[in-house]
Amino acid sequence: MSLIVQKFGGTSVGDVDRIRAVADHVARTRRQGHQVALVVSAMGKETDELLHLAETVSKTRPGREMDMLITAGERKAAALVTMALADLGVPGLSLTGSQAGFITDTTHRNAKILEIRTARIQEALDAGRVPVVGGSQGMSTESGDVTFLGRGGSDTTAVALAAVLKADVCELYTDVTGMYTADPAVVHNARRLLRLSFDELLEMTATGCPKPAMRAVEVARNNRVKLHVRSAFTWEPGTWVYEEDETMEQAIISAVTHDTSEAKVTVTRVPDRPGIAARLFRALADNDVNVDMIVQNVSMDGTTDISFTVPKESVARALEVSGSSDIGAGEVTADETVARVSLVGAGMKSNPGVAATMFETLARAGVNLEMISTSAIRISCVVRAAQVEEAVQLLHDAFELGAA
Amino acid sequence: MSLIVQKFGGTSVGDVDRIRAVADHVARTRRQGHQVALVVSAMGKETDELLHLAETVSKTRPGREMDMLITAGERKAAALVTMALADLGVPGLSLTGSQAGFITDTTHRNAKILEIRTARIQEALDAGRVPVVGGSQGMSTESGDVTFLGRGGSDTTAVALAAVLKADVCELYTDVTGMYTADPAVVHNARRLLRLSFDELLEMTATGCPKPAMRAVEVARNNRVKLHVRSAFTWEPGTWVYEEDETMEQAIISAVTHDTSEAKVTVTRVPDRPGIAARLFRALADNDVNVDMIVQNVSMDGTTDISFTVPKESVARALEVSGSSDIGAGEVTADETVARVSLVGAGMKSNPGVAATMFETLARAGVNLEMISTSAIRISCVVRAAQVEEAVQLLHDAFELGAA
Repeated sequence: MSLIVQKFGGTSVGDVDRIRAVADHVARTRRQGHQVALVVSAMGKETDELLHLAETVSKTRPGREMDMLITAGERKAAALVTMALADLGVPGLSLTGSQAGFITDTTHRNAKILEIRTARIQEALDAGRVPVVGGSQGMSTESGDVTFLGRGGSDTTAVALAAVLKADVCELYTDVTGMYTADPAVVHNARRLLRLSFDELLEMTATGCPKPAMRAVEVARNNRVKLHVRSAFTWEPGTWVYEEDETMEQAIISAVTHDTSEAKVTVTRVPDRPGIAARLFRALADNDVNVDMIVQNVSMDGTTDISFTVPKESVARALEVSGSSDIGAGEVTADETVARVSLVGAGMKSNPGVAATMFETLARAGVNLEMISTSAIRISCVVRAAQVEEAVQLLHDAFELGAA
Repeated sequence: MSLIVQKFGGTSVGDVDRIRAVADHVARTRRQGHQVALVVSAMGKETDELLHLAETVSKTRPGREMDMLITAGERKAAALVTMALADLGVPGLSLTGSQAGFITDTTHRNAKILEIRTARIQEALDAGRVPVVGGSQGMSTESGDVTFLGRGGSDTTAVALAAVLKADVCELYTDVTGMYTADPAVVHNARRLLRLSFDELLEMTATGCPKPAMRAVEVARNNRVKLHVRSAFTWEPGTWVYEEDETMEQAIISAVTHDTSEAKVTVTRVPDRPGIAARLFRALADNDVNVDMIVQNVSMDGTTDISFTVPKESVARALEVSGSSDIGAGEVTADETVARVSLVGAGMKSNPGVAATMFETLARAGVNLEMISTSAIRISCVVRAAQVEEAVQLLHDAFELGAA
């Protein structure tokens, strides 16, 4: 008998029929002889609706109160799923994050899990019940307050729970059927990946792949939790993610990802003195601007140009911070018509020609590379936004990632 | 400085503007030098919507899960009201029933308060904060589960909280401006009552007056909590309810109430032996049929007829239980076209002519009395539903209850 943690996202419990379908699937999993623990998100767009309600009611919106408000969503979903299970004769037990023993810090709206006290969940499992845990929530024992782990936090709840329960697998049910060699909406012959390493999945989520939440993948990697990313609409097997096995034959490239959510900021004529770049990026960090790629040009006449990418919603703040007198820069500009295309693959490490092939492929098509950054298993290029879908298709073809 | 517990019902926090209006009122109360503790219901029709959702999802609907679901409503309202207070610079602290220390039994959907551990609320008050408690909820320390006190339970939460905090007054804000000498929708010159005794208010709520919840009035009476029933729309002073002061001049009759929510069930030819009536009403109680008025005819030839009223939604069950062979009755019939009209007044105790005046008034108008029941401060008559509004107006006039 294996223990499976199943997480169902908002779309998967979005209405009454979906909730019943989830209950059916859980009942079937139990009939196959498995123990099941569930984690559920809030139904459909409920979290967005609660956020909107709060914005309409209040300008200040204290974090503690926001968390109290938002966590109502997963609580409702957990109770409804448990009721649907009861109709099928499956004894369940809905649990808030607090009841499920998720102890967090007090960082409201973005709390970190410190500890999971599993006594109540373990007791339910031992009694043959299905614990149904509200995702993305916990409580701070320091303040006694309810906390919210942030958007996408249900993935983290599920993976962390699978880690402490030593579950055999953590199944992340979502509205996609798994991870693909490229976005199927862009590349017609994109292929579902049967298997990925944690590092590959991390690079993919970091470079534009929307699911699962990157934070959850990090927890999975650090705790070696085997993931199965799959669909709650088709129930077909999806993509498995587990510890890289060096003896396995490794595809050189696993996927081409792209991301159009960032803008490029360029700061010209920065004094090329030690500590200036540090001062710039410290100032950006202090202002909650999340910098991603950074490229610094070769120094000319004692000054240098620095380009970096930030989420589009942070552009205004990035311009303000970068242009402040502390930095002493010349001009600061932003360009929102850029996009990033990335190649991800664990096999890249031992195949030095990958970058060259990538650059040649894009050059032949007249795609100009404005920024480049690399890791051991990823190469990312910033290109014109208008050219990014073409670039994805070209690279997908060049590395023969498509379905046969 | 006095301590005021203010309770806001669902309509009073029904939308964003209403929530802001509540926050304004709380801020004003504090500027007047009072300490305030709040109790809030779920917004508008939210509890109904959650119940409907549960009915759509599940046939079984375990009580524990229903309570987990429904309590999401007050939690949201409490967080939103606290956010609105923050905008006005009033430091608040939203608390679930559990966080507020409401310890209950485990009777889900209708839990009873066993104890209120006020440490956290008292701490908030001492720190100059406004505790904002989700109404109608608590937790069972026995099971560790969330519990719901039932519909209308927020009134009970507020009154019980006022009792343990020894508050100077418990203000129940609602969508009416107070208690009236008769339903203003029926009697054009119905007058708002400035003052009532607990016993009068109890009789009024028991005979058709919809607010406040009878259970809350009982808690108030037993703990001598001074109530002020008033409007969250006009904010004008409403009806005060407090301990009867025998030295005060007492109006003979305070109000005429009426109720069309019940049906009359008649059981004919019941064997007139000791224990038969007891068996009937025990069987009804065991089947959760809430019997109100009971009238038993004089015995004829060894059998008797028993009539009683029950809520219309319980008629089917009442017929089934009453007709079972255990009782050995002749025929069982139900009549849903009845209504009850009641006179309530503490002064009735020392005025024996009240019943006679009531019966004469109704007889002159051709209103037939089908059942009669009395208490020390109330007389109720069952009449044809079609005649009840006329009866209310006639009695209101006869006892000169109208505005001058």
